[in-house]
Amino acid sequence: MNKKELISQIKKKQSFLCVGLDTDIKRIPKHLLHLDDPVFEFNKQIIDTTKDLCVAYKPNIAFYESMGISGWKSLQKTLGYIPEDILIIADAKRGDIGNTSRMYAKAFFECLNFDAVTVTPYMGSDSVMPFLEFNNKWAIVLALTSNKGGLDFQNIKDEDGKQLFEQVLETSKTWGTSENMMYVVGATRVNQLSEIRNIIPDHFILVPGIGAQGGNMQEVAKYGMNDECGLLVNSSRAIIYAGNGIDFSEKAKEQAQKLQQEMAALLSEKGI
Amino acid sequence: MNKKELISQIKKKQSFLCVGLDTDIKRIPKHLLHLDDPVFEFNKQIIDTTKDLCVAYKPNIAFYESMGISGWKSLQKTLGYIPEDILIIADAKRGDIGNTSRMYAKAFFECLNFDAVTVTPYMGSDSVMPFLEFNNKWAIVLALTSNKGGLDFQNIKDEDGKQLFEQVLETSKTWGTSENMMYVVGATRVNQLSEIRNIIPDHFILVPGIGAQGGNMQEVAKYGMNDECGLLVNSSRAIIYAGNGIDFSEKAKEQAQKLQQEMAALLSEKGI
Repeated sequence: MNKKELISQIKKKQSFLCVGLDTDIKRIPKHLLHLDDPVFEFNKQIIDTTKDLCVAYKPNIAFYESMGISGWKSLQKTLGYIPEDILIIADAKRGDIGNTSRMYAKAFFECLNFDAVTVTPYMGSDSVMPFLEFNNKWAIVLALTSNKGGLDFQNIKDEDGKQLFEQVLETSKTWGTSENMMYVVGATRVNQLSEIRNIIPDHFILVPGIGAQGGNMQEVAKYGMNDECGLLVNSSRAIIYAGNGIDFSEKAKEQAQKLQQEMAALLSEKGI
Repeated sequence: MNKKELISQIKKKQSFLCVGLDTDIKRIPKHLLHLDDPVFEFNKQIIDTTKDLCVAYKPNIAFYESMGISGWKSLQKTLGYIPEDILIIADAKRGDIGNTSRMYAKAFFECLNFDAVTVTPYMGSDSVMPFLEFNNKWAIVLALTSNKGGLDFQNIKDEDGKQLFEQVLETSKTWGTSENMMYVVGATRVNQLSEIRNIIPDHFILVPGIGAQGGNMQEVAKYGMNDECGLLVNSSRAIIYAGNGIDFSEKAKEQAQKLQQEMAALLSEKGI
């Protein structure tokens, strides 16, 4: 999916919601556990009730990887079930020397047909650039993450007072364009979002940390939205684990709808 | 495997060689391609001829992941074939927020039974610490990598002139001990190895970049070896692709032997 198509979906659905599929066999409703593939069945029902409310799904690869081969099978089936007009992000945080990143890109873009992969920038240019060589695919580079440890290194200042995440943004944005790169900025880092927007005015920003991690959507939109929206706000646990009974997917829908309505108002304020 | 056992293997084999299993279906000898599982068959023969010469194997996870479910099956079979007294490192460069890193740790330590996983430090403490909660398992944290892009961010100096990789070493070494953490330092960064040794006198250092990437083993040992050896030097392509015919595993053995003999001399000089 390219940038134009993504923006068109955002306008059509009046939503910039990304639903995180952090599907944990230990947290899904008990009544699914007797089925052949409970993880896929859970995802399928979540997709059924939320697909008109979101523009992206983001399977968290660790959750599937931790189940071995059966996890990869559940993931493949899930990918096959997501409608084509929805962006699919592999939240995988990959990155290695060039020849190895090329293999990861192949794994996610060719073998699994994801639209985007989250990538960690520590190893620099040749760890990210192989992900930029695919048509209509995206590398989503970590800039400033929402977790506590995010501040261990990402805000270290250099001799000119520039923080590491700013260096990452300034350097890495020269490796691609806003047509094949996005950035991760946690919703809990909203006080730095407008300065980030200054560095990357046109790039989409994937914002996790709404909900379970405590971020605020109004603030994220205030400081992060650009004229094309430029935001994908992710919610995982607050949506997919909203309920735990037979009606779990309806509960998930209610949560997704609440966020979508908030988003529609914010988009409308911006005239998008 | 714990530190004592690793050191004992190094002494016994007079080797600190790690063989990287970056097994690429496009590069393995043609005569293996008609077999059911050419990747496993290749690894099996490499293991047969090199297992007495090395103390660790390091499958590069990207190469298996890029083949989908069949790649994971080849990996599982390979892991099952490696003798128990050899350390097995998942070169996976994982790292995410706490609950997700916990899933990756589970994937590699429980589901696949690796001894160690390489971990990227960009997301800080909670991205690394879940890997430290397993008995006799290791997190191998990226400090200074061998690739060109390694210098995009890793040597950025802070206001006190301290480079990012030094901050990573100083901060992260407080999260665990030299019994459950190692560090990656590329062989091409040998000029910074003695200052790294000063920061982490007791930790094992995993050194890739010998061979195909141009690093020099004598220099690595000179600046990086401590009284317990403290080094694992990895060679991947230079060993596993030394030959391309029926005798590929014998050619691999010759290369491994050359490195092992060099290592034996270096260990003996140190009285290890």
